[in-house]
Amino acid sequence: MIAPGATIGILGGGQLGRMTALAAARLGYSCHVFAPEADSPAFAVARHTCASWDDRAALAEFAASVAVVTLEFENVPVDALEFLAGRVEVRPDAAVLAVTQDRLAEKRFLQSRGFPVAPHREVRRPEDAASALVELGGRGVLKTIRLGYDGRGQSIVTAPEEAVAAFEALGPGIKVLETFVPFEREISVVTARRADGALASFPAVENRHERHILRSTLAPAPIAPALAEEAVALAEAVAEALGVVGLLAVEMFVTTEGRLLVNELAPRPHNSGHWTIDACPVSQFEQLVRAICDLPLGDTTPFAAAVMDNLLGGEVDNWPILLAEPGARVHLYGKREVRPGRKMGHVTRLFPTLDGIKR
Amino acid sequence: MIAPGATIGILGGGQLGRMTALAAARLGYSCHVFAPEADSPAFAVARHTCASWDDRAALAEFAASVAVVTLEFENVPVDALEFLAGRVEVRPDAAVLAVTQDRLAEKRFLQSRGFPVAPHREVRRPEDAASALVELGGRGVLKTIRLGYDGRGQSIVTAPEEAVAAFEALGPGIKVLETFVPFEREISVVTARRADGALASFPAVENRHERHILRSTLAPAPIAPALAEEAVALAEAVAEALGVVGLLAVEMFVTTEGRLLVNELAPRPHNSGHWTIDACPVSQFEQLVRAICDLPLGDTTPFAAAVMDNLLGGEVDNWPILLAEPGARVHLYGKREVRPGRKMGHVTRLFPTLDGIKR
Repeated sequence: MIAPGATIGILGGGQLGRMTALAAARLGYSCHVFAPEADSPAFAVARHTCASWDDRAALAEFAASVAVVTLEFENVPVDALEFLAGRVEVRPDAAVLAVTQDRLAEKRFLQSRGFPVAPHREVRRPEDAASALVELGGRGVLKTIRLGYDGRGQSIVTAPEEAVAAFEALGPGIKVLETFVPFEREISVVTARRADGALASFPAVENRHERHILRSTLAPAPIAPALAEEAVALAEAVAEALGVVGLLAVEMFVTTEGRLLVNELAPRPHNSGHWTIDACPVSQFEQLVRAICDLPLGDTTPFAAAVMDNLLGGEVDNWPILLAEPGARVHLYGKREVRPGRKMGHVTRLFPTLDGIKR
Repeated sequence: MIAPGATIGILGGGQLGRMTALAAARLGYSCHVFAPEADSPAFAVARHTCASWDDRAALAEFAASVAVVTLEFENVPVDALEFLAGRVEVRPDAAVLAVTQDRLAEKRFLQSRGFPVAPHREVRRPEDAASALVELGGRGVLKTIRLGYDGRGQSIVTAPEEAVAAFEALGPGIKVLETFVPFEREISVVTARRADGALASFPAVENRHERHILRSTLAPAPIAPALAEEAVALAEAVAEALGVVGLLAVEMFVTTEGRLLVNELAPRPHNSGHWTIDACPVSQFEQLVRAICDLPLGDTTPFAAAVMDNLLGGEVDNWPILLAEPGARVHLYGKREVRPGRKMGHVTRLFPTLDGIKR
């Protein structure tokens, strides 16, 4: 057990790192944030090192200062993780990241373990994109296998020549073409797993996207209880198969036939778990701290239903109105630069149930 | 309005400053903590300056780095506050602190404005303590007028010779002898006040002490609604009369006749308001940030009843048990040294109502 008072290392300095550091502080831990960007939002709330992922001296000093390392950003280079792992426990570890950093590796892993995923093809050349599209029924999403987020690095394609053009537009590297799944809704489950295998999950939530960016989360997801349970069981099985220590967010489609398909994995706090700060006894961020420090996992039973709305880009300028709204829980990330679609904050509203709300 | 993104200065680096900094971060502010003690718990969660209150260069640099200054510790020397006030807005201001730092000035202020206080006498010499005790009916509490907290600097006296001995034991300086009030319970109200006069109060709570240290807070206080309203009205009237900007905690006795007497004022976050973190839309710490930044004051309506228990001294060693308790909200302050009676953390438990709980 890593007792309160110890220092937790966090790789990545965005809002997820910031909120992790705030949750760690609530439990009496200190944090040390490592990130390459000088204007990292998490730097303001913890000790920090601003250095690049290949700065071995900085990584070594960072490792020496912390009792355990976690991450808020899954694209930390695997060699940096391995370097750190030679000096201090890294949770989740490089093997988990190697899978989740690469869409193709992730899909292969899921498929090999029997988890349901959408039909897809590896695409190495522009002309393969066209033939794969035909094989997959003529409608798909072409994605880079690395470094995509919030809709970057992906393109919907509905014709072979479009697939070829999209391949070239997405830049160099292998891509994956996924069948466009006709889905009823997108849901996700955030699961925590400790090194000894103990698991705890927050309930399944529904995610509404706008231009591929998460717009709103509805918690709990307005789906049948049996399906919600199936989603949690699926997420926990994936966390177990992956051997993740920390958090795993599992994004899923509910298909029009009512089946679940795993869409994406994120071994870190997830935007769709922000509502837990205000509606659960223990937030996803505190749960991460508990999981990586071998503490008892916290109670994930919500005491209210919740709707979380992201504040994207200029929407953050509404803060005076939001702060005046009774009951609105406003979270701002302290980012100086407003850019279109950038996640600047979020607001959570609680309800006795979600019946009649935003269905 | 001091917009999110600005830096808030906090004088004092204890757990109250730490929790203020965490609440400020949630709203997108940065903090800069100024405190003389190297092991200040708030230093881990914000930029900080460790310097003495008379270090003018350090104070000037601190003032230049922040948009507004508040405090978590009411015994900041008034001349330091006045020095800062020449450079940046200090909320609450030195005039408020001059009253609340001095028990006698505080009682005179309250009495002059017609607020109910217990009968008391100024005591300048040991022999005056004896005669004052006789005048006040033979049973009282002798207190230093400065720097008392958690029962330090006070002594219950029931005989003239005891009063003389207590005067000497309490060290040099003027004292105040207060009638020992036969009370039914102790309650408090935390009120926020903005510079434009807007007020918002959390409901009255009951405080249970043990050896003069707060043991537990029950929220709301199990008293008649009319009395609870009277307590809020009294706290707001005191905040207005004092002209405080920020928070004012007003401790009161409910006498055995059901009357309210003001016992003590604290122009800062208060231990009896910690339950608000887990049971109200906006905590006392966020409310402080809102008040000093001229933001809309937040919704103070609890969504649950709560019992807050302090973790004093070695009780903090129970953290593994507390973390395993479903629903318990555990807060640890990151203090390295455990001392008997020291406030090391607190735990809040929520209930639908407090009926039947710990009455």
